Amino acid sequence: MIGRLNHVAIAVKNLEAAATTYRSALGARVSAPQALPEHGVTVVFVELPNTKIELLEPLGADSPIARFLEKNADGGMHHVCYEVDDILAARDRLKAGGARVLGDGNPRIGAHGKPVLFLHPKDFNGTLVELEQV
Amino acid sequence: MIGRLNHVAIAVKNLEAAATTYRSALGARVSAPQALPEHGVTVVFVELPNTKIELLEPLGADSPIARFLEKNADGGMHHVCYEVDDILAARDRLKAGGARVLGDGNPRIGAHGKPVLFLHPKDFNGTLVELEQV
Repeated sequence: MIGRLNHVAIAVKNLEAAATTYRSALGARVSAPQALPEHGVTVVFVELPNTKIELLEPLGADSPIARFLEKNADGGMHHVCYEVDDILAARDRLKAGGARVLGDGNPRIGAHGKPVLFLHPKDFNGTLVELEQV
Repeated sequence: MIGRLNHVAIAVKNLEAAATTYRSALGARVSAPQALPEHGVTVVFVELPNTKIELLEPLGADSPIARFLEKNADGGMHHVCYEVDDILAARDRLKAGGARVLGDGNPRIGAHGKPVLFLHPKDFNGTLVELEQV
């Protein structure tokens, strides 16, 4: 069912500093910051040859990563995103198997403009899993 | 400097259950378990089209992931591994920039039989980073 690893998301307190770390210390290609107020984050993409790392900084009062950063003061790995062909079929299969889908269970449009769902970390080895329909 | 994302490692308490989750719930291809006593882990590889997820279960008394699992009872994302062409050049560049290399600073042979180094999470947004020479 799952296909490519679309991205690994890392929550950071200071996006400019984190982008500099990836660009200068690790020598990677890093995109310009994009503010996504509807998702409560500002993001840069670390463009690796086979996938990408998304560095996420909280934006606004209700950022979904603000609480994560309260608990993880240095930042940290926040979620992995796997691609699927059919997000509704994936959701139904997962729910039938007992996995919990976060929110109201309906896909919403994610940061890349495509339908996404998040799965409960307790059902996936303590790892927040995003599914994105590509 | 860094190239492909070689893998994302997820520490788990029960490798069989975690492999079943990836195989059955997520429909991924998962390898047979490999015990790596010299690394203190048993591992399976979730084989995605563009990279892999390594599920790690502690093996033996001195497993490097035992303490992580004490703090993260459900398991969780443990590290990311980036490929480099020349690990000594990468190390020297990182050290010159002030990044801390774990251990004695010399590469050791990692779980894939190739030279690896680990970088201090505090220097990389709370994320443990492995470099592997490919």
